[in-house]
Amino acid sequence: MRSLEAYQSAINEALVTRLQSDEFAEPSGLYEPCKYILQNGGKRVRASLVLLASKMFSGSYSSAMSVALAFETFHNFTLIHDDIMDKASIRRGKPTVHTKWDENTAILSGDAVMIIAYLFFEESGTFVPQLFKLLNKTALEVCEGQQYDVDLENAALSDSIVSEPMYLKMIELKTSVLLAACLKAGAIVGGASKEDADKIYEIGRLIGIAFQLQDDVLDTYGNEQTFGKKIGGDIRVNKKTYLLIQALQSLQGAEKQQLLQLMSDSSIDETDKFNKVVALYNSVDVKSKTVAVITDYFRQAQTILDSIQIADIQKEELKTFMSELLSREY
Amino acid sequence: MRSLEAYQSAINEALVTRLQSDEFAEPSGLYEPCKYILQNGGKRVRASLVLLASKMFSGSYSSAMSVALAFETFHNFTLIHDDIMDKASIRRGKPTVHTKWDENTAILSGDAVMIIAYLFFEESGTFVPQLFKLLNKTALEVCEGQQYDVDLENAALSDSIVSEPMYLKMIELKTSVLLAACLKAGAIVGGASKEDADKIYEIGRLIGIAFQLQDDVLDTYGNEQTFGKKIGGDIRVNKKTYLLIQALQSLQGAEKQQLLQLMSDSSIDETDKFNKVVALYNSVDVKSKTVAVITDYFRQAQTILDSIQIADIQKEELKTFMSELLSREY
Repeated sequence: MRSLEAYQSAINEALVTRLQSDEFAEPSGLYEPCKYILQNGGKRVRASLVLLASKMFSGSYSSAMSVALAFETFHNFTLIHDDIMDKASIRRGKPTVHTKWDENTAILSGDAVMIIAYLFFEESGTFVPQLFKLLNKTALEVCEGQQYDVDLENAALSDSIVSEPMYLKMIELKTSVLLAACLKAGAIVGGASKEDADKIYEIGRLIGIAFQLQDDVLDTYGNEQTFGKKIGGDIRVNKKTYLLIQALQSLQGAEKQQLLQLMSDSSIDETDKFNKVVALYNSVDVKSKTVAVITDYFRQAQTILDSIQIADIQKEELKTFMSELLSREY
Repeated sequence: MRSLEAYQSAINEALVTRLQSDEFAEPSGLYEPCKYILQNGGKRVRASLVLLASKMFSGSYSSAMSVALAFETFHNFTLIHDDIMDKASIRRGKPTVHTKWDENTAILSGDAVMIIAYLFFEESGTFVPQLFKLLNKTALEVCEGQQYDVDLENAALSDSIVSEPMYLKMIELKTSVLLAACLKAGAIVGGASKEDADKIYEIGRLIGIAFQLQDDVLDTYGNEQTFGKKIGGDIRVNKKTYLLIQALQSLQGAEKQQLLQLMSDSSIDETDKFNKVVALYNSVDVKSKTVAVITDYFRQAQTILDSIQIADIQKEELKTFMSELLSREY
């Protein structure tokens, strides 16, 4: 996100400085893994959204930095524990915490990273009670989203929970609410009215869902160069994406059977499987339907942004961020 | 603790009621394990201490219940994750969460239980900022204590960290600070002055350390009937207890070598090992030295309690609690 790049170095600098504090020195067996994940790069999207929203309402973001660090730190806690659960060995090109150390270390230092997130919140002064509520609600929702993701992955394709509404609920909870809360927290610190803070939350929720749906589209229809990762991974592992759920809903008879057959055949050549699944997706316009849904989410977000009563120039950064998201190449 | 029994049913009832809320209904894959651990018995020592301290200063405890539930819930979060790390299969006579479900479920629901603890704190009204700080500090210290425990367990006996000060620091962080924070939080909600709240924290810290040291003594010198678990477990698994660390400090030459030899000999008969280790402990008065240390912690706590400027009758419950602790049979 080029629009957020301006914030990254300020966030990284503030985080490094904050973590140098004596309170995070000993025992090093606990704090080294915490610092490792927190200083291990990352785009700092969540912290940037806090700063962006704060600046949007107050013209400055200095008082929002501790809140930005809190949300970024919370996000990193989820990464440590998710990586254990997913048995992921690499994150941002480096070994994950449980790979570099071990699972017990990753569980405990993940817990500590979550507590450090709350600790950073203390520094938000008079906003503590309001932001505390927002973080609690959001944190629990993120756990719920993770559980829905597990439930979906474990469900049979014929299970009633493998549905469009459940999938949308899952990505909303797992990803969107945190982005939404970051924007809202920034707005609160920036002095926005309750109404505007709620509006910007809704914008975050909508573009967060759209972003995840885009990821699904790009994993199948993307350009490897611009998407930055290999295409076709979702189809290869039979991931229950929005595309697959749409296709299962739309396909009938022999074609639906063919899709199910392709997913249960472990001996089939990968490229062959990919091409056949994509052909079935195309036969029921899965891509264009999904792109239409994404565009609609963006349009709703845009309408809400227009209704916020601040000068247009103050909205520019968020507008740019949104249009950058929307223009990711399919 | 008979003195705390009066609080237990009120705590259990409040917790069950609170957890029946719709907000903890779905996804059940997340919330069932949370409710399982939170409603799985337990003595409710931590919640009781919050209520006791609150009553001590205000004569009532109704407004302290949400804070009591928060600390009890936080404690249960540590149990879920500790049980994974320790590979413990039974807790309070029932399968642990990771045994009844699986490790991933235990990691995620443990995270949720921690967040629920913070959520319960929201309900403490005007005390939120103050209690929030106290919980954050304490929560991070508990993680530090857990790490020091791991560090101690992994250390060679000759390592400089296997020392009395490090052991005391470990049990203070792992156990005492949470008991201390419970008392302090109750005092704050009960309207205690800052000075008195700090004093009661110190009392909790001292009796918490004493309680852990007692556990070490009882595991070797206790009466199986009254202690409630099998004697000798610590010696059998070469646990680095206060007794062992004291003995290693005091023993010299051939006797020290004999103790080290007993700990490295995996073929030795358990009873034989126990008797020989105890004989070595007795040769340097490990038991009476440790009991003297425990008594001193209690005496310090008693002196601080005496200095709190409230009517003696208000101190009765805490006094009874302390004397019950002290009189656990050696």
